[in-house]
Amino acid sequence: MKDQASVLRETDGEARKLARTLLRSARYAAIAVLDPETGFPFASRVLLGTDIDGVPVILVSGLSAHTRALDADVRASLLTGEPGKGDPLAYARLTTQCRAEPVDRDSVVHARIRGRFLNRHAKAKLYIDFPDFRFFRLVPQSASMNGGFGRAYVLEGADLAIRSSANETVAAQADEILRDLLDKNPDLARDAALTLKGADHKIWGICGLDCGGLDLISGEILLRYELETVAQSASELYSHISKIKYAIPQI
Amino acid sequence: MKDQASVLRETDGEARKLARTLLRSARYAAIAVLDPETGFPFASRVLLGTDIDGVPVILVSGLSAHTRALDADVRASLLTGEPGKGDPLAYARLTTQCRAEPVDRDSVVHARIRGRFLNRHAKAKLYIDFPDFRFFRLVPQSASMNGGFGRAYVLEGADLAIRSSANETVAAQADEILRDLLDKNPDLARDAALTLKGADHKIWGICGLDCGGLDLISGEILLRYELETVAQSASELYSHISKIKYAIPQI
Repeated sequence: MKDQASVLRETDGEARKLARTLLRSARYAAIAVLDPETGFPFASRVLLGTDIDGVPVILVSGLSAHTRALDADVRASLLTGEPGKGDPLAYARLTTQCRAEPVDRDSVVHARIRGRFLNRHAKAKLYIDFPDFRFFRLVPQSASMNGGFGRAYVLEGADLAIRSSANETVAAQADEILRDLLDKNPDLARDAALTLKGADHKIWGICGLDCGGLDLISGEILLRYELETVAQSASELYSHISKIKYAIPQI
Repeated sequence: MKDQASVLRETDGEARKLARTLLRSARYAAIAVLDPETGFPFASRVLLGTDIDGVPVILVSGLSAHTRALDADVRASLLTGEPGKGDPLAYARLTTQCRAEPVDRDSVVHARIRGRFLNRHAKAKLYIDFPDFRFFRLVPQSASMNGGFGRAYVLEGADLAIRSSANETVAAQADEILRDLLDKNPDLARDAALTLKGADHKIWGICGLDCGGLDLISGEILLRYELETVAQSASELYSHISKIKYAIPQI
């Protein structure tokens, strides 16, 4: 289903980048699922993380309504992109249609997702290992983006994926690669954040690394630094990221 | 479908009041509808208002995905209650299952809803009368509230309604009643807002009046002042509201 509130624009590289950023910089999302009892759509709130291939992940209680719904029907929709000051509809937001894949607790995938999720949501350590809590991978099938009034785009699921033969390697070596990068540039997180949003006085950290870029965190603010191209090897990723430098604007 | 992430609590008067407040103080909401082409749930963002009977209303373009979905299937779900600082899941939120009723543009109901909506969303005057824009009343059928970790409640649609034989009278005379109330207490909006949230330096106005209470606005902040009981006449409403006074706390 396309969100054609306005004339549909051609989905170019810039639109795809904005869509990926809206999905990957969201700390939480509205999720819509199908109520197995009534067939009604059901909207609720979930904490959001991402897997190494860019697939959004959620951590949910087995007793919650959305979990029981996903067990009955894997179709779900995520709304990401929060409004700021002024008209809420002037802010870009993304609707991603997904199919939910439960994550087996004893799998390598679970360990990887758990680590990435905790880096982003430190307070989740209070309940992440409760026996009734589980992860789902929500694999994007298609998406529609409303970039603000008059700017609507349709995307494919693949537009939101990080396709790289190096995904597993980077997942396994992420800590090591980051250590090397920070040895070379201790201000990497700050440089990446300020390149995206200009100078501030916040303390920035890195809470995620994948072949598509960096997740940056400062308290409750999450930013996504998207690389122009997806790295196809760990050394290519290292090379791309080590080029990030914040240049103070010359007035 | 009940959100039983935590032990379900008894739905008492306090829980009902919180639920009504979450619905009536929301400037916008996530709406979940059913995609008529794929059957997927579809989550998007809408501006929210209320009708005189407490029923939430949305203003939507006929070209948007959610409008086409509601034309095909009236079942919808609204998520209201935005998070603030800290863990997003620590903040109360409400999922309301609704049936959508299109509002005929030439009806008295349309004129009433349009006026109330513009009082709340002044910038909507730019497009509210565009020929492809329409209102839907989203009549609550049931709701589930998550009041933060460990506090889940189930509500009936009727818990979110303003049932009063004076609804139509108050809708017709709202401006006049407000003028009388403000003659008596020019600080009414400020008194009501400060009673709810303590002293601040904002300028408060009233953007809605109904038999259940007042909608208060300051820039982009909306507050709901809920009366303890629904007024059954215009004079009873006047009497309830004229008693609102902010008492500076004695330290």
